[in-house]
Amino acid sequence: MLVVNKIDELRKVLKEKRKGGCSVGFVPTMGALHAGHASLIRRSAREHGCTVVSIFVNPSQFNEVSDFEKYPKNQENDRIIAENEGASILFCPEANEIYPDGFETSVIVGQVADTLCGAARPGHFRGVAGIVLKLLNIVQPDDAYFGQKDAQQIAVIKKMVRDLNLDVRIEACPIIRERDGLAMSSRNIFLNDTERSEAVILPTALETAKRLVREGVRETGEIKKCVASLIGRSKLAEVDYIEIVDADTMQTVPSVNGRALLALAVRFGKTRLIDNIMLQVYN
Amino acid sequence: MLVVNKIDELRKVLKEKRKGGCSVGFVPTMGALHAGHASLIRRSAREHGCTVVSIFVNPSQFNEVSDFEKYPKNQENDRIIAENEGASILFCPEANEIYPDGFETSVIVGQVADTLCGAARPGHFRGVAGIVLKLLNIVQPDDAYFGQKDAQQIAVIKKMVRDLNLDVRIEACPIIRERDGLAMSSRNIFLNDTERSEAVILPTALETAKRLVREGVRETGEIKKCVASLIGRSKLAEVDYIEIVDADTMQTVPSVNGRALLALAVRFGKTRLIDNIMLQVYN
Repeated sequence: MLVVNKIDELRKVLKEKRKGGCSVGFVPTMGALHAGHASLIRRSAREHGCTVVSIFVNPSQFNEVSDFEKYPKNQENDRIIAENEGASILFCPEANEIYPDGFETSVIVGQVADTLCGAARPGHFRGVAGIVLKLLNIVQPDDAYFGQKDAQQIAVIKKMVRDLNLDVRIEACPIIRERDGLAMSSRNIFLNDTERSEAVILPTALETAKRLVREGVRETGEIKKCVASLIGRSKLAEVDYIEIVDADTMQTVPSVNGRALLALAVRFGKTRLIDNIMLQVYN
Repeated sequence: MLVVNKIDELRKVLKEKRKGGCSVGFVPTMGALHAGHASLIRRSAREHGCTVVSIFVNPSQFNEVSDFEKYPKNQENDRIIAENEGASILFCPEANEIYPDGFETSVIVGQVADTLCGAARPGHFRGVAGIVLKLLNIVQPDDAYFGQKDAQQIAVIKKMVRDLNLDVRIEACPIIRERDGLAMSSRNIFLNDTERSEAVILPTALETAKRLVREGVRETGEIKKCVASLIGRSKLAEVDYIEIVDADTMQTVPSVNGRALLALAVRFGKTRLIDNIMLQVYN
């Protein structure tokens, strides 16, 4: 696996790979790789001759400086995971390589970015869209892989790709969970033991919602109330949002017809966790 | 020359061209082609095996609906010029191909877009940046050619290309002028005979400024005053702006050191004309 820090060098290496007939898969990350990232890299490596993994903790998508500063970093571990899962190139640019002096341009994606995490974290998705656009332009992959855990991120990126006519396929990959169901996240390490054990209420609540739909409940208000009441059993849980939305537009829906996404963000202590599940009605 | 209306078809054709080892040059236009556009197409055709000319009157860059509606259209003439100058592909998408239902994403380039025409035409450069970004993503050219007459447009696009890491070279090509010096523009046909004869004061004033600098004048206030006074001799001329700016940032400079751009926008009747010249001090 080649480790590259400079955009020009990465472009040169990728041009050669493409000349040799290689297709390119891309997994953009903020490092602190876990089994979720590993599954994306593995899938890309299966589908492409060349897989690029990027590690860049993007300052512009953190709305709180403290959150950015304490974001977990573990370069050596990241390198090992990326290599083991079949990455060909690890791209680790410095901040000034990505945001040189005078950088100003930003991308506004519209309504899909304004609800849920977009409402709770002002500017977050503008930062996400900007960095992903830059990275897609640098790597020019055939496919880019993202984890379904960040469902709104995927919706924002798909919208941007469509609106800006980017020549790339965005592949959403299943959420990878801990043994007890908690969605893998780089932020899970911030949970203390009590918080960690209470956090398992999130996947439990999502599964309960799925069961309710299977049993015939359609009204989203009723489903959300049930989810909130379950999560309320945890003393530490502070709900940021529990919403049922259209998975493409991220706008709330009054009832589940066909597919709808149940998404939530809940704080345990200082750690904000997100999770989601697709609710589906088979007619 | 192939005429294409659909994005998917264009992509397919270009993929084949590239497979055959062709490099791609791109000349985006709003149609109403004149000798200025012709010079861009000619240059691209000289430098690339495949030249794409696009014709799309982009509604999102007009800040006045009436200006958009009356923008000159002459498809048959455009086709002939593009073909004669060596274009391989003429891309003429319909509005709903470029802006399908639900389109929302926009690009904000920052300060370079806020002065001069950006101040006079709110939202104009956001529209320009958005459509050029889309077209660059669709065509994926090696080089894209723009006329220096729209100097701020070039500065905005170069800034966007740099900030978003687009893999394309932006080539600025010299202003093409009528026999009497008036810069070629699709809008010149709106001038009546009196306006047309008075409009020649613009290139005259620009050349005078150049002479002043050659003669040792450096202070931009003095140069601008002289230009304004010359243009003031035309009874019909209504000055929108006369500015001397850094050619990359489009911010005003107090004196001419090295290179500076003298740019102006002046109305003759209902028609707004722009023109510019590079002022250069050789030390």
